[in-house]
Amino acid sequence: MEFKLDKRLSDDTYLIGDLPLCRVLLMDVSNFPWVILVPRLQDKTELFQLSTSEQTDYQKETNYFLESMSTLYNSHKMNIASLGNLVSQLHTHVIVRFRYDDAWPNPVWSYPSMSRYNEMESNMEIDKIRKLVDDYI
Amino acid sequence: MEFKLDKRLSDDTYLIGDLPLCRVLLMDVSNFPWVILVPRLQDKTELFQLSTSEQTDYQKETNYFLESMSTLYNSHKMNIASLGNLVSQLHTHVIVRFRYDDAWPNPVWSYPSMSRYNEMESNMEIDKIRKLVDDYI
Repeated sequence: MEFKLDKRLSDDTYLIGDLPLCRVLLMDVSNFPWVILVPRLQDKTELFQLSTSEQTDYQKETNYFLESMSTLYNSHKMNIASLGNLVSQLHTHVIVRFRYDDAWPNPVWSYPSMSRYNEMESNMEIDKIRKLVDDYI
Repeated sequence: MEFKLDKRLSDDTYLIGDLPLCRVLLMDVSNFPWVILVPRLQDKTELFQLSTSEQTDYQKETNYFLESMSTLYNSHKMNIASLGNLVSQLHTHVIVRFRYDDAWPNPVWSYPSMSRYNEMESNMEIDKIRKLVDDYI
């Protein structure tokens, strides 16, 4: 069955590209560097539903994004979460945090005033993060 | 070097037991079934700092807890997150969510009125979750 991205995820993000397992999306929130990794699988809602080989790919890809975004942005902390209370399609948030960011030290979801990128900002972010996808081995 | 649990994690939790890699703690919050897995390693703050074999253990243990707690509590959704903005010692939250719980559909951290367990409640929860640790293969 063909993979179909949830409409809400699609509406709230920019498409960056595909890793072997996951689609990479840039969250349209300019307050925090924030990507979402979506395993291109149908009808999965929980991480434990992945096969062993899918889990290996998932872990490799999430760790790659944690480490490469930490380096790219010189983070103070990386946050990773799979929640899925609103969007059931399995997806994982990878978020770069700084000690001076808008929500620190709280989780980003506690921040009530998220802003969207303007066009110039989103293009710059997309270019930077697409390079991480291109560099994935 | 001997593993030493962060004081804040210790203060906010009940000790359940140890898996091969992770210490298992019950979060002292009665609103949500909520455990914290802490790899028994010194000076790790990010998942990507784990060795390959540690990552394998970490993934196996987190997936085991996601699946076994989902079954135990008949969850509507499992949430998993590694944040670490307040407590830098690497740790992962595994939280059982229900469509009728106090914070649904928001992340639990958005809920302002968390309650602690009373002694009977905490003993019941500890017994249930310790059985999951004992059953781990």
